[in-house]
Amino acid sequence: MAQFDLPLDQLESYRYPDAEPADLDAFWSRTLAEARKHPLDVRLEPVVTPLRTVAVRDVEFAGFAGDRIRAWLVTPADADPDRPLPVVVEFIGYGGGRGLAHQHLLWASAGFAHLVVDTRGQGAGWSVGATPDPHGSTSSTPGFMTRGVDSPDDHYYRRVYTDAVRAVEAARTVAGLDPDRIVVTGGSQGGGISLAVSALVPDLAGVAARVPFLCAFRRSVALIDRDPYAEVRRYLAVHRNKRDVVFGTLDYFDNAHLASRSRCPAWISTALMDDVCPPSTVYAAYNAYAGPKRIQVWPFNGHEGGGADDDLLVLDFFRELLGT
Amino acid sequence: MAQFDLPLDQLESYRYPDAEPADLDAFWSRTLAEARKHPLDVRLEPVVTPLRTVAVRDVEFAGFAGDRIRAWLVTPADADPDRPLPVVVEFIGYGGGRGLAHQHLLWASAGFAHLVVDTRGQGAGWSVGATPDPHGSTSSTPGFMTRGVDSPDDHYYRRVYTDAVRAVEAARTVAGLDPDRIVVTGGSQGGGISLAVSALVPDLAGVAARVPFLCAFRRSVALIDRDPYAEVRRYLAVHRNKRDVVFGTLDYFDNAHLASRSRCPAWISTALMDDVCPPSTVYAAYNAYAGPKRIQVWPFNGHEGGGADDDLLVLDFFRELLGT
Amino acid sequence: MAQFDLPLDQLESYRYPDAEPADLDAFWSRTLAEARKHPLDVRLEPVVTPLRTVAVRDVEFAGFAGDRIRAWLVTPADADPDRPLPVVVEFIGYGGGRGLAHQHLLWASAGFAHLVVDTRGQGAGWSVGATPDPHGSTSSTPGFMTRGVDSPDDHYYRRVYTDAVRAVEAARTVAGLDPDRIVVTGGSQGGGISLAVSALVPDLAGVAARVPFLCAFRRSVALIDRDPYAEVRRYLAVHRNKRDVVFGTLDYFDNAHLASRSRCPAWISTALMDDVCPPSTVYAAYNAYAGPKRIQVWPFNGHEGGGADDDLLVLDFFRELLGT
Amino acid sequence: MAQFDLPLDQLESYRYPDAEPADLDAFWSRTLAEARKHPLDVRLEPVVTPLRTVAVRDVEFAGFAGDRIRAWLVTPADADPDRPLPVVVEFIGYGGGRGLAHQHLLWASAGFAHLVVDTRGQGAGWSVGATPDPHGSTSSTPGFMTRGVDSPDDHYYRRVYTDAVRAVEAARTVAGLDPDRIVVTGGSQGGGISLAVSALVPDLAGVAARVPFLCAFRRSVALIDRDPYAEVRRYLAVHRNKRDVVFGTLDYFDNAHLASRSRCPAWISTALMDDVCPPSTVYAAYNAYAGPKRIQVWPFNGHEGGGADDDLLVLDFFRELLGT
Amino acid sequence: MAQFDLPLDQLESYRYPDAEPADLDAFWSRTLAEARKHPLDVRLEPVVTPLRTVAVRDVEFAGFAGDRIRAWLVTPADADPDRPLPVVVEFIGYGGGRGLAHQHLLWASAGFAHLVVDTRGQGAGWSVGATPDPHGSTSSTPGFMTRGVDSPDDHYYRRVYTDAVRAVEAARTVAGLDPDRIVVTGGSQGGGISLAVSALVPDLAGVAARVPFLCAFRRSVALIDRDPYAEVRRYLAVHRNKRDVVFGTLDYFDNAHLASRSRCPAWISTALMDDVCPPSTVYAAYNAYAGPKRIQVWPFNGHEGGGADDDLLVLDFFRELLGT
Amino acid sequence: MAQFDLPLDQLESYRYPDAEPADLDAFWSRTLAEARKHPLDVRLEPVVTPLRTVAVRDVEFAGFAGDRIRAWLVTPADADPDRPLPVVVEFIGYGGGRGLAHQHLLWASAGFAHLVVDTRGQGAGWSVGATPDPHGSTSSTPGFMTRGVDSPDDHYYRRVYTDAVRAVEAARTVAGLDPDRIVVTGGSQGGGISLAVSALVPDLAGVAARVPFLCAFRRSVALIDRDPYAEVRRYLAVHRNKRDVVFGTLDYFDNAHLASRSRCPAWISTALMDDVCPPSTVYAAYNAYAGPKRIQVWPFNGHEGGGADDDLLVLDFFRELLGT
Repeated sequence: MAQFDLPLDQLESYRYPDAEPADLDAFWSRTLAEARKHPLDVRLEPVVTPLRTVAVRDVEFAGFAGDRIRAWLVTPADADPDRPLPVVVEFIGYGGGRGLAHQHLLWASAGFAHLVVDTRGQGAGWSVGATPDPHGSTSSTPGFMTRGVDSPDDHYYRRVYTDAVRAVEAARTVAGLDPDRIVVTGGSQGGGISLAVSALVPDLAGVAARVPFLCAFRRSVALIDRDPYAEVRRYLAVHRNKRDVVFGTLDYFDNAHLASRSRCPAWISTALMDDVCPPSTVYAAYNAYAGPKRIQVWPFNGHEGGGADDDLLVLDFFRELLGT
Repeated sequence: MAQFDLPLDQLESYRYPDAEPADLDAFWSRTLAEARKHPLDVRLEPVVTPLRTVAVRDVEFAGFAGDRIRAWLVTPADADPDRPLPVVVEFIGYGGGRGLAHQHLLWASAGFAHLVVDTRGQGAGWSVGATPDPHGSTSSTPGFMTRGVDSPDDHYYRRVYTDAVRAVEAARTVAGLDPDRIVVTGGSQGGGISLAVSALVPDLAGVAARVPFLCAFRRSVALIDRDPYAEVRRYLAVHRNKRDVVFGTLDYFDNAHLASRSRCPAWISTALMDDVCPPSTVYAAYNAYAGPKRIQVWPFNGHEGGGADDDLLVLDFFRELLGT
Repeated sequence: MAQFDLPLDQLESYRYPDAEPADLDAFWSRTLAEARKHPLDVRLEPVVTPLRTVAVRDVEFAGFAGDRIRAWLVTPADADPDRPLPVVVEFIGYGGGRGLAHQHLLWASAGFAHLVVDTRGQGAGWSVGATPDPHGSTSSTPGFMTRGVDSPDDHYYRRVYTDAVRAVEAARTVAGLDPDRIVVTGGSQGGGISLAVSALVPDLAGVAARVPFLCAFRRSVALIDRDPYAEVRRYLAVHRNKRDVVFGTLDYFDNAHLASRSRCPAWISTALMDDVCPPSTVYAAYNAYAGPKRIQVWPFNGHEGGGADDDLLVLDFFRELLGT
Repeated sequence: MAQFDLPLDQLESYRYPDAEPADLDAFWSRTLAEARKHPLDVRLEPVVTPLRTVAVRDVEFAGFAGDRIRAWLVTPADADPDRPLPVVVEFIGYGGGRGLAHQHLLWASAGFAHLVVDTRGQGAGWSVGATPDPHGSTSSTPGFMTRGVDSPDDHYYRRVYTDAVRAVEAARTVAGLDPDRIVVTGGSQGGGISLAVSALVPDLAGVAARVPFLCAFRRSVALIDRDPYAEVRRYLAVHRNKRDVVFGTLDYFDNAHLASRSRCPAWISTALMDDVCPPSTVYAAYNAYAGPKRIQVWPFNGHEGGGADDDLLVLDFFRELLGT
Repeated sequence: MAQFDLPLDQLESYRYPDAEPADLDAFWSRTLAEARKHPLDVRLEPVVTPLRTVAVRDVEFAGFAGDRIRAWLVTPADADPDRPLPVVVEFIGYGGGRGLAHQHLLWASAGFAHLVVDTRGQGAGWSVGATPDPHGSTSSTPGFMTRGVDSPDDHYYRRVYTDAVRAVEAARTVAGLDPDRIVVTGGSQGGGISLAVSALVPDLAGVAARVPFLCAFRRSVALIDRDPYAEVRRYLAVHRNKRDVVFGTLDYFDNAHLASRSRCPAWISTALMDDVCPPSTVYAAYNAYAGPKRIQVWPFNGHEGGGADDDLLVLDFFRELLGT
Repeated sequence: MAQFDLPLDQLESYRYPDAEPADLDAFWSRTLAEARKHPLDVRLEPVVTPLRTVAVRDVEFAGFAGDRIRAWLVTPADADPDRPLPVVVEFIGYGGGRGLAHQHLLWASAGFAHLVVDTRGQGAGWSVGATPDPHGSTSSTPGFMTRGVDSPDDHYYRRVYTDAVRAVEAARTVAGLDPDRIVVTGGSQGGGISLAVSALVPDLAGVAARVPFLCAFRRSVALIDRDPYAEVRRYLAVHRNKRDVVFGTLDYFDNAHLASRSRCPAWISTALMDDVCPPSTVYAAYNAYAGPKRIQVWPFNGHEGGGADDDLLVLDFFRELLGT
């Protein structure tokens, strides 16, 4: 079936039924506090490229446990140093990395500063990454979903979400960037990270999450048999008695729970034929989202969602929010 | 088998064994002469976009039979009108269209004028198109490969190649663009069209064809069972007695024949695991190519070829050629 | 799931919820009136075959816009010229053509005249066609479903349905055929065309539509991800903002709407595991059908439906209607 | 790769390298002698059908071990009882049965008597069968290939080939059929059986084998991983130490061996993309064939081979041979 | 969808709605009585193996129609002849055979006698079998499901279930085995046979059926399109008018009916993503089961079910029942 | 093609053409020396199981970097403490872990001590693992193949091979086990590790490697597009310019190089249809192997190789070597 998930009217009222961890806020307070013990130590290195209309800097900062995280900072070449730029912080989809600098021209061409944040350990799937993840794992399935899944403290996404929060903090330190006009965005995993950041960073200007991943794990793992959600299913198919442990861990990273902490304006998209990040799980986060919000539904798309059409919608949304 | 085609050493010396049509040059002279009877009538309309570093114009000109062909012209926003820009004319991969304007930022960001030419009738596969193909067809398989395949005069690619030649001619008429510094490029179908244009337009500055399609049909149709080459196979599986007619038609559009007319510098890429445009067929065109040439071989890629790495290599190649 | 659509009891009461175009009748009146301005100009040419019990004629007549449409007319070799034959007009499944004459022996062997009508432009998928479609298209996906889908006037099936109506009119002019005993039939696309003809030709003797296509587009495109319905889905996945335009066009060709105009006796079949033309869309047309009707449900078949068993059921149905 | 087997020039000279069983002729002499101990006991029962140009009889005769074999006999309705008809004996492709009577109109429509012979035990795959196989088997894979494969005496095709020889003998007893003008034909398994019959029945008028199965087992099982040849592969993947036993059995039924006994004129077809009955195995039989012969090669077809085009070629071949 | 069947709460109350055959008990009484007319004639032959901790005997006994059935009997090497062992009789999954003796170490290593019963005719799919099925069949699809499916008397599983009952009876005759402490077990087909035996043998000590097959045919054939249930679907897709006959036969072998005769303690497992033996069909048997029972549900597994985890659960269950 | 690799005669003489790293021996001397700085610290904990004929101990020892590695030690329950047991050290296939203790009964039942060594980080694919890999990685594809692939020092298999060598050393310290009669074995990854251990541990009694993985990387990655070799291909398809780096790393772990250091008797199996660990890569190691050797070729198997038949052959081989 092409539109295999709940019908649209049921999606619109879908509430994720499972309870969040009692110490969800404490967990994240503690996690971020620990990370902040490491100085951010933001370093920016100009990059020589064949590009003329934009300038690119190679960025490095301290993420989780002080591990060094890489990013690209792309800005209009003719930016006026006295007029700080609004900033788009972007997170990357599953498997990819920050790629090559010339692959990120849209936001700077539209007058934004654009920070493209690498995802630790990833970046060998469809675009190159440059950031190691120096932390190992107990038994895991191929992929990143089940690394350290036996405990929230060890889970891979604890590190990734923390890196992402620190990326926003790093952006705020860069001269020429406006610390009060920072938005976050991304698609799929990048969308899921964006939503998490919107919950963990209190004063963002906005978030745009395209076909976001990392939502409603107890439902998505039961519903979908495609990676990456299926990595969890395969784990549980072998570690059959760890169901409570695994979902107990994943609950700390679930945007269906975190979204109730978010307050900034949000734009979210979903596609009714998306069998990677199914619409009911996106709606689970959307319906929990506590700030002003709108959702864009694409009825005949899969996980590619709105593609280039979403680019324009997000551009409009951010220009409206940030006054560029 | 991952690397399923000839081994590299045999690729390097592979010559397409089949003869070209006796009247190949006459066919194209006649075809282009007829098209040129229709005034080019180039029209440019500025487009309002959220982009600041580049300017976009919606372009229209007369292609085959005077049919109106659409394109985007993207230029650096701050281009000096007195210093004509070098021009990259790009053709699109099979099924796609010129897309939305903001999807084409690379070349203008690097200081080139960039003409993105729509492909008639296509543009509903992965990026939107805006150009009709008002010509019908005899019995054909779904797709564009076998439309009018019973005769070179009626074949779909007669119209497409002619549109492409006319696109170069249109670029030469635009103020602010340097008519002596025009290169053509594209990937897959766009690479095949680029090669054909390099043969049909005598004074191009260069061509960069990535994983080009439309080469060595008699081999590719026998070797590959994936679309679009397989459209021809399916046609012949039903119209079983038309083998000579069909290949007789396709010979007129085969870059393994046309490339011996090309004289401008060429950069071509191919991937050893490409089962859409297999490497032996790319080498068939490359080895026939009559101008200065180099080839980039990607041993572990499929039809995605060099991706973002090819972007940089083509940028280098064109900057070297055009002196930007 | 093998039986993936609605359960049988819900199928039996399923009503397509979407409204038909206000000018549906006017559209078709105008369309057919325009076509009838072109003289039918029926031509029949005897064909030499190795067959002895049947005679074959190659038929040509004017369809939409006067375009020449091809057909086979197969009749019993020993037919008595003074006893006009009942006529079965057959339309072909998607992708196929009228094929070779010897592939159509059933109806003439059973004492009927059999007119096998080619489908313009098709005939390179599984049986050969001989009829061009001289009309082009705006941007379309490979296949025939989205050719001209931006407007009812330009849509491919406007031409095909008109050809089909004209085929019945052509049959009525042939000596030895009984103009009052004409039935239409076909499977899949041929079934869909048959249903449309039953609505557009007021005085048919009957219609037998096997696993009919071209029904309930708004449902079928959302439900099914196999071609040909999926051609529309792919179109809308790229032309994302054309949903209303596209379905607005398809509504004019939807048997879930047209069937309410039909008055002749109908026999329709459907298969509960048919994931090409799913049973709910067939029932959408069946339940709207305004004439005497019966439906044959095959619970364990896919799109092959009743196959040779349906042959016999349709033979019985037509013999009963036509008194042979 | 689409054309995956040997190139055409190597096919043309391909000789199956493995030796035939020393007692191959003795095995078949003994087998047929045993079968002939059971009286043929041919019974013919007229069948009521809606068909007018042909007459159908339900036929039964004694095959291997005297088991009753079913067939259809279809003849022109107006046949002159004093002019015995030439006879086409047809065998069916793997999995199918004799089907319904109205599915067999071609040969009678062309003036032949047509005996459509059921295949014991089969007939639940794509057309219905009516003939049991009362013999069991040792351990076998799903399908018919490995039933009794541990011994030539017990193998399934010993029974099937014997039934086929007896079918020809049965045809010779029927009034109105010309016992001196009998040809055999079939596609795939039906082609393989036809070839075997051409070797086992000395005085046939001809054989037409389309994309024949049951050839060159030692090669086909190693080359092809699609059923039915793959049934043998799967058997050997479990019964790993039975390779010599299994191929030792299959050798008795291999047309690459049997064809050297054939003397009547043969027409054989093969398709270069046939991954069910690959061309090298067809050529193995063809090149061994000891009578006058021709081969039709379809370069762009798979196992469907020449389809309706082969119908016409076989019709021509048989008309030429039989003088109709 | 990963969990494609009914949700868990509906599974728990699911009742198979179809009625059982009126003469179900009579059929099985008659069947077993006939089988028992053949002396069991149990023969045991010690097997030389490299194993030291267990002893293996090759067993043979008379099954249905007196046909000889093979089995392995594996016992602890140091078993005390004066202390009869509890017995685990195991049946094999579809396609497999009793395999090699060293593949069956678990039960004897845990102190049980273990009788591994071959399945007639099977044993060429994933483990070797040694037992012929000397009975033939009318038209059937490849596989075992539809052999003799036109009549309960002729159906393949009549023979298999009878063999299984006789296997328990054979175990009771072996010196050193405790006839009062016999349990049956198996997975998939082996689980289905075990359930049937629990219904047909009144005084078993227990049954453990893992992801059992052969349940709720009218639902499973409509729901699932994977073998072996799909063998029945394919049969009915060709023999379209035999629906009542086929299900009328299968009803006699359906554990959703038979389970209401079972009285011994039962442990059953099912997996919510099992698309071979879907959970609703397992629950159909479980909810009908008339003895003490428990069910183990694996939410993230497919047909592998609980795998090694089920081993331990079944070990616990049997040790609890049998007091080892 | 089923047998897709080189023909058998070419396999038998196939030599891997690529050179080994100049410092291959130095690398491994240094690596093992570093590991040995950590005390082995072997700990054995009896495990309570329902098994009676065998005793199980949970083993832990220091592997690479002193990381704790888990294993099962299974021995005959009645082993005579004064007669040290011959030892089979087994390594596990890719993705699996040491599983549950009762899954390892074969070797102890045959009179051997059996040490089943976990593979760090794995054990969530088809059997459970219990050993973390505390080391992180730079950018990698999902899976284990490319973790740390940018440098031999960081590569995952440096740790795994070292763990395996240390496992043998741990076995030598256990009371009741004969340190002079230790053999290693495993299938797929377990076979590859076994081969590596045979090269790195000078005084083993033998090695049996079934369908071994980790051989001839430069060929296997180019030839095979299935995981796990394809993990490397995907890495190189993104990190396009790292070919020399990556293969430069993998060379240190390639059994086609290491095997020339092995001296103990070896038994190796390969399957001609194995598209996971293709036969030419197994032969590359086999033909380089420097000790006494034999190879078992299974012509009709895929990666399952000889399965239960290989069990018996390896049992024979080890009994012959170890004199049990």
